[in-house]
Amino acid sequence: MTITANPVDTVIAAARAFLGDRLSTNASVREQHAKGEDANPPVLPDAVAFVESTEEVSRLLALCNTHGVPVTPFGAGTSLEGHVVPLRRGISLDLSRMTAILEVNAEDMDCLVEPGVSRHQLNDHLRDQGLFFPVDPGSHCSLGGMVATRASGTNAVRYGTMREATLGLEVVLADGRVITTGGRTRKAANGYDLTRLFVGSEGTLGVVTKIRLRLQGIPEATSAAVCQFESLQAAVETVIMTMQAGIPVARIELADADQMRASIAYSKLDFQPLPTLFLEFHGSPAGVQEQAAAVEAIAEDMGGKGFAWAHDAEARSKLWKARHDAWWAANALYPGCRGITTDVCVPISRLAEAITGAKALADAAGQNTCIVGHVGDGNYHVVILFPADDPQGLEKAWALDRQIVAQGLALGGTCSGEHGIGLGKREFLEQEHGAEVLAVMRSLKATLDPKGILNPGKLFLN
Amino acid sequence: MTITANPVDTVIAAARAFLGDRLSTNASVREQHAKGEDANPPVLPDAVAFVESTEEVSRLLALCNTHGVPVTPFGAGTSLEGHVVPLRRGISLDLSRMTAILEVNAEDMDCLVEPGVSRHQLNDHLRDQGLFFPVDPGSHCSLGGMVATRASGTNAVRYGTMREATLGLEVVLADGRVITTGGRTRKAANGYDLTRLFVGSEGTLGVVTKIRLRLQGIPEATSAAVCQFESLQAAVETVIMTMQAGIPVARIELADADQMRASIAYSKLDFQPLPTLFLEFHGSPAGVQEQAAAVEAIAEDMGGKGFAWAHDAEARSKLWKARHDAWWAANALYPGCRGITTDVCVPISRLAEAITGAKALADAAGQNTCIVGHVGDGNYHVVILFPADDPQGLEKAWALDRQIVAQGLALGGTCSGEHGIGLGKREFLEQEHGAEVLAVMRSLKATLDPKGILNPGKLFLN
Repeated sequence: MTITANPVDTVIAAARAFLGDRLSTNASVREQHAKGEDANPPVLPDAVAFVESTEEVSRLLALCNTHGVPVTPFGAGTSLEGHVVPLRRGISLDLSRMTAILEVNAEDMDCLVEPGVSRHQLNDHLRDQGLFFPVDPGSHCSLGGMVATRASGTNAVRYGTMREATLGLEVVLADGRVITTGGRTRKAANGYDLTRLFVGSEGTLGVVTKIRLRLQGIPEATSAAVCQFESLQAAVETVIMTMQAGIPVARIELADADQMRASIAYSKLDFQPLPTLFLEFHGSPAGVQEQAAAVEAIAEDMGGKGFAWAHDAEARSKLWKARHDAWWAANALYPGCRGITTDVCVPISRLAEAITGAKALADAAGQNTCIVGHVGDGNYHVVILFPADDPQGLEKAWALDRQIVAQGLALGGTCSGEHGIGLGKREFLEQEHGAEVLAVMRSLKATLDPKGILNPGKLFLN
Repeated sequence: MTITANPVDTVIAAARAFLGDRLSTNASVREQHAKGEDANPPVLPDAVAFVESTEEVSRLLALCNTHGVPVTPFGAGTSLEGHVVPLRRGISLDLSRMTAILEVNAEDMDCLVEPGVSRHQLNDHLRDQGLFFPVDPGSHCSLGGMVATRASGTNAVRYGTMREATLGLEVVLADGRVITTGGRTRKAANGYDLTRLFVGSEGTLGVVTKIRLRLQGIPEATSAAVCQFESLQAAVETVIMTMQAGIPVARIELADADQMRASIAYSKLDFQPLPTLFLEFHGSPAGVQEQAAAVEAIAEDMGGKGFAWAHDAEARSKLWKARHDAWWAANALYPGCRGITTDVCVPISRLAEAITGAKALADAAGQNTCIVGHVGDGNYHVVILFPADDPQGLEKAWALDRQIVAQGLALGGTCSGEHGIGLGKREFLEQEHGAEVLAVMRSLKATLDPKGILNPGKLFLN
């Protein structure tokens, strides 16, 4: 009599042969890999693999592919859309130990890193070379996760997103083949753009094991300022006019009055609870002055209360930490609440309608919300807070999320500017793109991952 | 007795039903669609279809797909790599009559155009709105062709290439399905980046029928300058130091002494036949002055002979026309010769080695060459001239091309910065990317064009 082993058990036993203790079925390790920072229900993986090399990823994927076992890549676990939830169990592939910075080519302003490197680690490493990596989603995310979700953040208005920052990738395909895409040149017309195909593919087409990134020179001068407004409309109109004037702001971030109330309390900021813009300017000393004067004039026309400057690095750092802690501040303002966040992005001309419209929808729904936004890109997050003990709380929050997304799509926008689709935005993907586009996306998925082992259940419904 | 019609005849007869006279089998029309501006042997298509709408493209592709008849898209016919040669005959799909500018959203700085629109037509249309479309390959190309080849040119150093400029596309797939990719927002994390997959796909994955482009504001101030050097090395070192200093030049173009000899004669320029940089600066009046002073100081350190300024629009226009006519000037310098051009792009730190190395290879081969380059991006063209009546001429030119590409690849470069692969660079694609990457590219091609009707024979050998 033959006893047929469960495929997952077969994979676990075989992977242990080359991963040893780094293939864990420990309960608390599995719990730590059951979800990200989102509100989706956690799912326990059958095992967690702490890989340390491309070869290990390749062997593990080949094994999982042979046995049809799902693999869910896991970086820093900061996803807000359920990307790291191992929806169909199987293996959680933890890349957080792959933290080598393999190359920095200061002359060409590029570098090669492993996916577990965080943007903080990279920037600490680069600082004394006069370089920095600009893409800044705020959280303690890994660069691998940022590639997977096509992340952006506060600096994207000036320096672009992971789409522009990623020069090339090493990717392990579902069957274990290893490919290198892209290259070190600033441009190329050398066949299909596989790099851009994997950037934003959310771990569904391959597992990224090396990342070549474009770096930027630390600007000669940097200045930050805060400007407060009586109305949300006036703050947003200031952003629209700044962008339309082509002023190369490095950051232009919005917080609404509710978010400011939260951040003033959480981050001990000396501002009023009013709609607020956080600005940063990069350039030569004269260039920074010129940009700032131009934006200040626009803000003044819109009734802004003047610029509060943060010239020194410490004051700037406090300001941006407060901005980055907005999510935690919002959660702290409403004790006993949990939050979900929208991620709509619209063309800049529709931004005032979109944001004031979102706030009106939230008020009509009687929901507590805080709004922050990378508004220079037309991207805003409505953080919807709901009582954790209300059994209908999450469903009501999602109902508002749906209304805000529908409004954003009607304004020519997208359901996700930077967080990705994951689980939470799947229902919007077809609404946004149409059935034919989804069919093409699914056909690419089927080509590169015919057995559907890579992050199954993400991006697409069913 | 049943007479089975030839599939091409079937398609021609059926297409005539909805295209009428715009489906032409006229000999001179077919001859005009047998090649681009390259040195590849012409191939006559069986027929030329002058389409005027997405619906016509869709009907025609569905028909060709059903009958397995090849389709080669044709825009302005300016390809330098044989993209428009209908290698396996069939239908040449001429999109040059689709010249509508469908939308200009000045507030959001984007537009929607048909693929037959030229960049000249678009810029003429935009001028009085204070906007321009920056990507500038120099030739009288169509925007559809520029999407297909991921084109760039003189402004890419500042404004990026078609990869960055293309926000979205309408694409007709091989079977006639019509999809819309991308959108109007500045960024998005909304599924696979189909837009970037089609940009640079050289007509092998689908036919582009609408293009949404990102526009730029016309800068407040523009200045152009020319600087000459005693050596090629000194000119290139000036470029490297300018880029490494992060000076946001709008254009920084190189012509070697031979090219200057050609351009002085052809474009009646008042310069010496020395290695020369053509520069342009965009920004505020103060910003332009600051940039120019910084580059001038670098050039002076490198022994440059000072800046000759072209402040007014007419002088600038003459200068850039001369630069854009470089290919024709090189051809005119050697009467009775034809030319091919390399398109290598390397990391900026390797540019001096690459260009002086290429010139050394050309001298060793005893070939006449002119070098021009979009050197801020590390991209340079060695125009190799050979006697048209020398039966070995083309083969010798290609032999030198191969040496220059091999050298560029060894320096971490790519075989094509902007012209694309087409026919001429197919042998280099696998050398550059490796067999596994080619296998992935082929699998994408097979998924989207299972019968291989779209521009067959391009990109891939065999």
